[in-house]
Amino acid sequence: MSNEANAIIPSMKLSDLGEFGLIRLISSASARYENSRGAPWQEVLVGIGDDAAAWQGDNRIQLATTDTLVQDVHFDLDIIGWDELGWKALAVNLSDIAAMGGIPKYALLSLALPAHMEVEDISKFIDSLMHTAEEFRVAIVGGNIAAAPNVIITVTIIGHTKGKAMLRRSTASPGEQIAVTGYVGLSAAGLEMLKGKAISDYETANLLRRAHFKPVPRVQEGQVLIDHGVKTAIDVSDGLVADLDHICQSSKVSAEIKIGQLPVHPVVTANFPNYQDLALYGGEDYELLFTADEATIARARQALGCPVTIIGSITREELPTRVTLLDNKGNIIPYRKGGWEHFKNEGPQTKFSQP
Amino acid sequence: MSNEANAIIPSMKLSDLGEFGLIRLISSASARYENSRGAPWQEVLVGIGDDAAAWQGDNRIQLATTDTLVQDVHFDLDIIGWDELGWKALAVNLSDIAAMGGIPKYALLSLALPAHMEVEDISKFIDSLMHTAEEFRVAIVGGNIAAAPNVIITVTIIGHTKGKAMLRRSTASPGEQIAVTGYVGLSAAGLEMLKGKAISDYETANLLRRAHFKPVPRVQEGQVLIDHGVKTAIDVSDGLVADLDHICQSSKVSAEIKIGQLPVHPVVTANFPNYQDLALYGGEDYELLFTADEATIARARQALGCPVTIIGSITREELPTRVTLLDNKGNIIPYRKGGWEHFKNEGPQTKFSQP
Repeated sequence: MSNEANAIIPSMKLSDLGEFGLIRLISSASARYENSRGAPWQEVLVGIGDDAAAWQGDNRIQLATTDTLVQDVHFDLDIIGWDELGWKALAVNLSDIAAMGGIPKYALLSLALPAHMEVEDISKFIDSLMHTAEEFRVAIVGGNIAAAPNVIITVTIIGHTKGKAMLRRSTASPGEQIAVTGYVGLSAAGLEMLKGKAISDYETANLLRRAHFKPVPRVQEGQVLIDHGVKTAIDVSDGLVADLDHICQSSKVSAEIKIGQLPVHPVVTANFPNYQDLALYGGEDYELLFTADEATIARARQALGCPVTIIGSITREELPTRVTLLDNKGNIIPYRKGGWEHFKNEGPQTKFSQP
Repeated sequence: MSNEANAIIPSMKLSDLGEFGLIRLISSASARYENSRGAPWQEVLVGIGDDAAAWQGDNRIQLATTDTLVQDVHFDLDIIGWDELGWKALAVNLSDIAAMGGIPKYALLSLALPAHMEVEDISKFIDSLMHTAEEFRVAIVGGNIAAAPNVIITVTIIGHTKGKAMLRRSTASPGEQIAVTGYVGLSAAGLEMLKGKAISDYETANLLRRAHFKPVPRVQEGQVLIDHGVKTAIDVSDGLVADLDHICQSSKVSAEIKIGQLPVHPVVTANFPNYQDLALYGGEDYELLFTADEATIARARQALGCPVTIIGSITREELPTRVTLLDNKGNIIPYRKGGWEHFKNEGPQTKFSQP
């Protein structure tokens, strides 16, 4: 049917191809049409391969993104509250708009649910989702309902940019600094606690639970980054190393992280001996990871109302190594190629991207 | 948490509430925010309750719709081909844009897939979806991938109207005629064949299979209807009676169908003794059901390149009866309250609507 299809080994499974292989397959199928004549293709500014899609609207750049949460893959109903799930379903999508520096406006909600569900539970979910939407000034304008063996929640958000600029994955340059908002590893630490790791202090437990179930998307911060000239960003969903790797692959650069500079929350350092792994490979923090020259980052940091930490720098592309970890003495330390990949391991959803 | 939540009987199941009850629950939760101050709420033209959502863009009315197909609920992988599934996943969404009289432009694809899937199969699906998208001049701009126990496909389409007009569900008036494009019941007849009903003739079998798996969304036709002054339409997805009932409820009117006038394909009349039931209650034809005065329908019919059949008329609201079926002598004949409803029975997906 196509060159790609011919190249596929018969009886190859999705688990052999992997999530990123599947994304490449979709991406190359799409590329055959991207140069199609006229509208809508000629208006597309960002297709498959970034945090959100973008196209030229009448006066503004339009943005759209979609994310799916699958029961027992992305959430466990034994530990997450329905109100927390309502927040998270919207937050993970808002984070993708934030990572483009955009303004979210409208959302569609697609629910696949088992018939045996409690109405009280789904009602809590709906209330929380609507409330979260109002907090971020997003109107839930429609959606779809279907029966399914387990709970699957797909949210689509449509928005636009403030001006003509966007935050991209593909614009990082050698010599730039790498910075991240807030803390990394808090969400993964929260998950470890929820899976059984004992945390005796109530305040600490609450902080960790919130970090995992109610991450705050950096919507305002994304816009502030654009206002101050930042061009490159991604949200930390797959994990710091994995998401930096996405930037490196899109920008055709490499990167160095000084692991001593990682912004690890004191609560994580104090309670989790593996805090460095949590910070490097734990995903779902929904912080913004961005690159820019020193002066730009200094200006952006001044304007942002949250912690900003410089954790390394962008270097020339050195294949096959893309992300190098350095200890305090500047020695290279080995790392496990991190980040979630569906079909090969379990973990959170991934946007279409071309890693 | 809310008045709605308080009104819910403890331990009530989704199967008790039903799909349309759930839609009302979401709709009333949303209504609490619809009058929220300023953007984006003040720009919303059509929220929950029609074939697609609509809001005022910079120069044009923007449209967005989403639909989910769930394995073993909406399709059976033992009988549908992967290429047919690629077509159908896009077509059911295009049909919702068609039912607003809109022009589809961009699509997002969200796939939840089991790891044991054959790459060759998913590749066929992707190729077919991309090819269908090109045929309807829609750019696939992004999406999401996740692992899941079974195949779940969610497509979101974003488009706009041609001018300032839209086709709505809520604008039907007493005295108007009711018309439908093409044939009704072909898709349901196809499903009966696929489930085992013997059809010996190859051409007939092929026609029925295509009607069920490769329905053609009436995208051009929707725009023609608007051009000729039609204001009210819905696509036939739940079934003719059920979808006419949606129009009646939204418009606060009743309707009469003359069952002798139903456009049933000769192949269905010849092979299916229950052809009238298939035409009245079988869904997924994705034809356009519309209402207008006699002269408007006559003009629209002249301009349309497909069959258009007048099947009845809109009457004043007569609760609780909304849709009345009349035989050739004008006698009322009983009918089973038709149409799919998730959680209570199995069937195709339903848009958020306020029946």
